[in-house]
Amino acid sequence: MEKRVEHIELKPRMRVDEFVKEMEKSGVFSAGRVAKAVEIYREMLEAGSTIFMGVGGAVVPGGLRRVLTQVINERLTSVLVTTGANVTHDLIEAFGGYHERGEALADDVKLRERGMSRIFDVYIPQSAFELFEDRIQPMFAEVTKEGTRMSSAELLRRIGSRLDDKNSFLKAAAEKNVPVFCPAIADSILGLQAWLYSQDHELNIDCLRDVREIVELAYGAKKPGAVLLGGGVAKNFVLQSMLLAPQAFEYAIQITMDRPEPGGLSGATLEEAKSWGKLAPRAKIVTVIGDVTVIFPMIVAAVLKG
Amino acid sequence: MEKRVEHIELKPRMRVDEFVKEMEKSGVFSAGRVAKAVEIYREMLEAGSTIFMGVGGAVVPGGLRRVLTQVINERLTSVLVTTGANVTHDLIEAFGGYHERGEALADDVKLRERGMSRIFDVYIPQSAFELFEDRIQPMFAEVTKEGTRMSSAELLRRIGSRLDDKNSFLKAAAEKNVPVFCPAIADSILGLQAWLYSQDHELNIDCLRDVREIVELAYGAKKPGAVLLGGGVAKNFVLQSMLLAPQAFEYAIQITMDRPEPGGLSGATLEEAKSWGKLAPRAKIVTVIGDVTVIFPMIVAAVLKG
Amino acid sequence: MEKRVEHIELKPRMRVDEFVKEMEKSGVFSAGRVAKAVEIYREMLEAGSTIFMGVGGAVVPGGLRRVLTQVINERLTSVLVTTGANVTHDLIEAFGGYHERGEALADDVKLRERGMSRIFDVYIPQSAFELFEDRIQPMFAEVTKEGTRMSSAELLRRIGSRLDDKNSFLKAAAEKNVPVFCPAIADSILGLQAWLYSQDHELNIDCLRDVREIVELAYGAKKPGAVLLGGGVAKNFVLQSMLLAPQAFEYAIQITMDRPEPGGLSGATLEEAKSWGKLAPRAKIVTVIGDVTVIFPMIVAAVLKG
Amino acid sequence: MEKRVEHIELKPRMRVDEFVKEMEKSGVFSAGRVAKAVEIYREMLEAGSTIFMGVGGAVVPGGLRRVLTQVINERLTSVLVTTGANVTHDLIEAFGGYHERGEALADDVKLRERGMSRIFDVYIPQSAFELFEDRIQPMFAEVTKEGTRMSSAELLRRIGSRLDDKNSFLKAAAEKNVPVFCPAIADSILGLQAWLYSQDHELNIDCLRDVREIVELAYGAKKPGAVLLGGGVAKNFVLQSMLLAPQAFEYAIQITMDRPEPGGLSGATLEEAKSWGKLAPRAKIVTVIGDVTVIFPMIVAAVLKG
Repeated sequence: MEKRVEHIELKPRMRVDEFVKEMEKSGVFSAGRVAKAVEIYREMLEAGSTIFMGVGGAVVPGGLRRVLTQVINERLTSVLVTTGANVTHDLIEAFGGYHERGEALADDVKLRERGMSRIFDVYIPQSAFELFEDRIQPMFAEVTKEGTRMSSAELLRRIGSRLDDKNSFLKAAAEKNVPVFCPAIADSILGLQAWLYSQDHELNIDCLRDVREIVELAYGAKKPGAVLLGGGVAKNFVLQSMLLAPQAFEYAIQITMDRPEPGGLSGATLEEAKSWGKLAPRAKIVTVIGDVTVIFPMIVAAVLKG
Repeated sequence: MEKRVEHIELKPRMRVDEFVKEMEKSGVFSAGRVAKAVEIYREMLEAGSTIFMGVGGAVVPGGLRRVLTQVINERLTSVLVTTGANVTHDLIEAFGGYHERGEALADDVKLRERGMSRIFDVYIPQSAFELFEDRIQPMFAEVTKEGTRMSSAELLRRIGSRLDDKNSFLKAAAEKNVPVFCPAIADSILGLQAWLYSQDHELNIDCLRDVREIVELAYGAKKPGAVLLGGGVAKNFVLQSMLLAPQAFEYAIQITMDRPEPGGLSGATLEEAKSWGKLAPRAKIVTVIGDVTVIFPMIVAAVLKG
Repeated sequence: MEKRVEHIELKPRMRVDEFVKEMEKSGVFSAGRVAKAVEIYREMLEAGSTIFMGVGGAVVPGGLRRVLTQVINERLTSVLVTTGANVTHDLIEAFGGYHERGEALADDVKLRERGMSRIFDVYIPQSAFELFEDRIQPMFAEVTKEGTRMSSAELLRRIGSRLDDKNSFLKAAAEKNVPVFCPAIADSILGLQAWLYSQDHELNIDCLRDVREIVELAYGAKKPGAVLLGGGVAKNFVLQSMLLAPQAFEYAIQITMDRPEPGGLSGATLEEAKSWGKLAPRAKIVTVIGDVTVIFPMIVAAVLKG
Repeated sequence: MEKRVEHIELKPRMRVDEFVKEMEKSGVFSAGRVAKAVEIYREMLEAGSTIFMGVGGAVVPGGLRRVLTQVINERLTSVLVTTGANVTHDLIEAFGGYHERGEALADDVKLRERGMSRIFDVYIPQSAFELFEDRIQPMFAEVTKEGTRMSSAELLRRIGSRLDDKNSFLKAAAEKNVPVFCPAIADSILGLQAWLYSQDHELNIDCLRDVREIVELAYGAKKPGAVLLGGGVAKNFVLQSMLLAPQAFEYAIQITMDRPEPGGLSGATLEEAKSWGKLAPRAKIVTVIGDVTVIFPMIVAAVLKG
């Protein structure tokens, strides 16, 4: 049953998909897991899976903004669940703000004096947040005309449809009808801005409506699959969507640096999710221990069709 | 300025505070960081700090339920921010449910067949969730009599005050007026139950009210300190509370297994928070890389006064 | 078969062994693993196990020098396998040198200019290495009078027996007849000094003699147990000692921050060692994911008899 | 000085070097570090650096055997320092043995009964070790005809030159005059076999000769660079080679999953090595946190010239 380990062989100018093919030939260690993730992703796409993608952390300032946009435009996901950080930083760039390359070993007190906030080795000027405030406050006024009580997904759909930046994943999602959930939206700069707005205006982001909407998607999903980039709420909200549905995820890919021993859901194995019925007993699963900003683009590059 | 490294010396029957004293004598590597965390914690308590504690993950099923209750009863925190998991599992035990010791390397498909869900090496029987539903649904009916739109903190205060279990941290918090925020409440079994209730009844958990309440606490805080157990929303929501306040955290203790390189907030250094103004430039800070279920009780045992 | 999770309860002025007892009551997550490590250690001691301890990394400059000495003096180990770093830094202190508390986020170029070398947050002055050279070179001349070809264990026994520092673990080991193996001795400052000596004198550190000596110990071991602090050569050399013996380790405790996915032996699970026959099929084992400088002293403090 | 973060953009059928170019455009998080590693590697090659490569762990059974061979044949390294595991498993395949794809979550007791040993998710049949013994014992007899006392590098050169397998990295190294050091050779199956041989024959692997040989290479090196795959002895032995040389590494690339806080050399930052003078003050350095079996082949594929 077992097969021999064939060794990876490299060529000058080889393509990413050929590179993944070599890792598949080997089939072991982390290289084998990346190849398996590509295999599962391709199978999901061929099967017409409804794909729920969880995107934790702050990968948008970390360079993956256009990758998320491509993922939406190329129909590599059906649903997005993400953090307030990813949404806020997508909006900042959509409004004309930008992020700078910096240093991870910086003098943070001096950065503060210079008006720079740091996200690992990315800097963002204070002016970007001022721009964000100037642009998001009138947008709240506009989007609440369609109703003042809404899910985070509805809020983000309304905002996304008003953006004028083809590189924005929120805009792409609104155009392609990919719902974007942000279940912990209060826990972000966007959430702080929403609260500022709500001091003088009616704005009610009803998180229970997010539950309703994602449970409906879970109910209606076809051969559902989960693609989990990092942990936190983005991962858990995707997985728990199946708890009340009659089905379970049949595929799951997880890319993370977290480990299971601390016991939180972020580092939990995909196997564990089977005990909860979130994953089907025979679900095809793989966990890649690695950094999302390297591993996920590699997988997408291999999966993309010309 | 530097001091010599003195080596840790052990004694039979030594007390935890004596053990920490030895780690202080050494002052280096992780042992030195645990000792520094104790030192900072004691200084916060002596200074009468307003302490904001973030509790990520699922440490309640992991054995820390009574430690959280002690932390509240002994006034070792002023504010709690936590996950839906910790709240849900506190309630399950308050309702008479229980958790079992299991195995991390389990057959999850068999567990599923036996009606057991797994959280690392903890099992929880399906019956506990049925009990939870039976008890929480009427409680929603009761607490909404005081109003149907509320923050997560208000919901948890109302629920906590109705519990009859001295070991419950939610009850202790309600009694001691320690607000418990759960900004991603929708992302939990409690959130799913709230949504079920809301299908036929009015229930509106308004996350922007959570922002208002914690920002008010941040405004009114005295020499504020942050104690961060794990990452995720619990960590970020504590830290961002200072973004709109005229002050910043003057103390911060972080216990985590996450690392900074993936770029998410969970593993971010405390130094980074200075660039955002969440921590004061001269804040006293320490990060302990270790497991919360071992390190935090050790710190509390050393800090507790007789 | 499963038991309910009892929650940890803390008391002011509680002893370390009482603290461990609480973690045993809980029995889950990392706290439960620390308690299990104490239980296995006590059982080994009661059974009169021959204990092989592997000590990786640089825990001697990290404050554990006297803990290692206590472990030897209190008969908590029968054999030590360690790194050249731990041996070198024990000798530096035995010769009157010292280590300083420093900063992990230091300017290493400035440290270099000041003649300070850094080991995480420990500094060691260049003068310590000069002292080391002054003292170790004549010692090589002395110990080679007993023969010029020897195992690392024999070299360290000869050196240890000539030291005059009761806090030195090498001296304690020589006095208590605990062999100290350093299979990668060339990979250290001690190794560099040995090579300098060997340029003009005959000195032959024969690593195959180390194999012979540890295999003999493995053959003669009674209910053998392994205590593995960190990974690397120290871990592997302990485990492989059983490959040629008719028996296998019946107990094993591992404390590490490494993880299994990169595939190296350092992070490998103890279960994996059963497939090699290094551990007996029913060996009692536990892996604690945590920092050695905190977790190991805690375990020893709980195990120590008054 | 800072530059804007440009976002990664993917294309179907893109080449690995184009993929790396996109990560360079972004320049941040782990993606930026991979791109920087490629940049530094190219600069080393253009500068005609003497490259010292440390290869820890067990990457040969993990699928990288031919990558190491390519690295040698394409002159991407000048010196190799590695573990006994990598050497042993290269020899096993050179002798006609093989590795199988297995499962990381295996029943190790059953594997033992089936005669299978496990390395993470790789299995190796007991028969491979019997074959290894049959072939290596007569080879020891042969190579000791050239002298019975030798460094590990000399032993491996003699063995490598006798192999008949173009995929063997030991053979390639012998042919291309790339010395392969294995400073902890006793800590491996090859070391056990060498000891078995030495019971009846004279064989003296003199680790101090390894020090002499690598220090000579360090002395003679031109613009020396270090490429460090994983930690342990392989990393330290490369870095310490400069301690006695008049120069220091001017380039260093590190790929690892270890972290600095436990204080061992494996997870130490490259900055720390500057305080020791192992790296030059202005050395160009980068650490990629990731798995060697994915990251290193990607870097090599980008660096390879057609």
